Amino acid sequence: MFVLGIDPGLSRCGYACIEAGARAARAQARAIGVIRTQSTAPLPERLADLQAELRALMVETRPTVVSVERVFFQVNVRTAMAVGQASGLAMAEAHAAGAEVVQYTPTQVKQAVAGDGRADKDQVGRMVATLLGLAAVPRPADAADAAALALCHLAHAPMQRVVRTVGSRGGPTVRSGVRR
Amino acid sequence: MFVLGIDPGLSRCGYACIEAGARAARAQARAIGVIRTQSTAPLPERLADLQAELRALMVETRPTVVSVERVFFQVNVRTAMAVGQASGLAMAEAHAAGAEVVQYTPTQVKQAVAGDGRADKDQVGRMVATLLGLAAVPRPADAADAAALALCHLAHAPMQRVVRTVGSRGGPTVRSGVRR
Repeated sequence: MFVLGIDPGLSRCGYACIEAGARAARAQARAIGVIRTQSTAPLPERLADLQAELRALMVETRPTVVSVERVFFQVNVRTAMAVGQASGLAMAEAHAAGAEVVQYTPTQVKQAVAGDGRADKDQVGRMVATLLGLAAVPRPADAADAAALALCHLAHAPMQRVVRTVGSRGGPTVRSGVRR
Repeated sequence: MFVLGIDPGLSRCGYACIEAGARAARAQARAIGVIRTQSTAPLPERLADLQAELRALMVETRPTVVSVERVFFQVNVRTAMAVGQASGLAMAEAHAAGAEVVQYTPTQVKQAVAGDGRADKDQVGRMVATLLGLAAVPRPADAADAAALALCHLAHAPMQRVVRTVGSRGGPTVRSGVRR
């Protein structure tokens, strides 16, 4: 199973395609990086470029699940709007490509990857490198964050399968917008 | 020239395709309505559905210009995020379809259509009906707002052409993300 993590952003949109192993520590990175759009280009052009790149990424990686950061209010309104626009494009493209879309909060990602919901970026980066057997922490941080989003889903997924088996549903805060 | 106004939203996204006449009062509505997505459906499905409908709308109406409401901070964070996501999809699809994308603030729209930047929704709706020669105010309000966005561009466009002719550029607050 391939899980594509997306850390949405307009200037830098992190992505990481992770192949699930027998357990989280066996997961392997198949593709990892960032999509950048020109900050000097007009907004509609940047959005269309990001959309086209995301669509190509779905075709290339064929993910079963796309794990997107759940966006909350940010202090900078302009940034919040750009992140919202980027996340909207990512979720629309993922659903259109037939993937299951899940969302996790930054706290859930830090808890799942570093064992501490208040872990800092360095801790998360180091744990991503350890779990994926990488020689170095992925750069820029957006790429590492995308890998953490994919790993977070892999950490949650087995538990969700068990919960489903006994006839209940996964915790409502774990995922939203699941396509069944 | 066809101008497609878009009032972005996830539950109701207003649209209005307006054909320019010799002057604003001669403009005619060629298509007007709203795109609705199921509030009970998962968010990624709603975004993908809206994206598909917006793409179909671009193909059907072949607009030269797409006029989108410039989104600002809103009190309700959830609503703000949904509006941001919808506006991002609209601008990406419009640019990808080869249209010029312009944005106007609600105050600019009210000023252009009703002559008062603080006009209420009823005033804007009545002026839209008058300018387009409609027997009734378009419903729901999102459809009328989309028509007002298109009419706002038609009101600004002649002036921009004159300004360009004398070698200057249109006022920076009038439009953003223009594709040249």
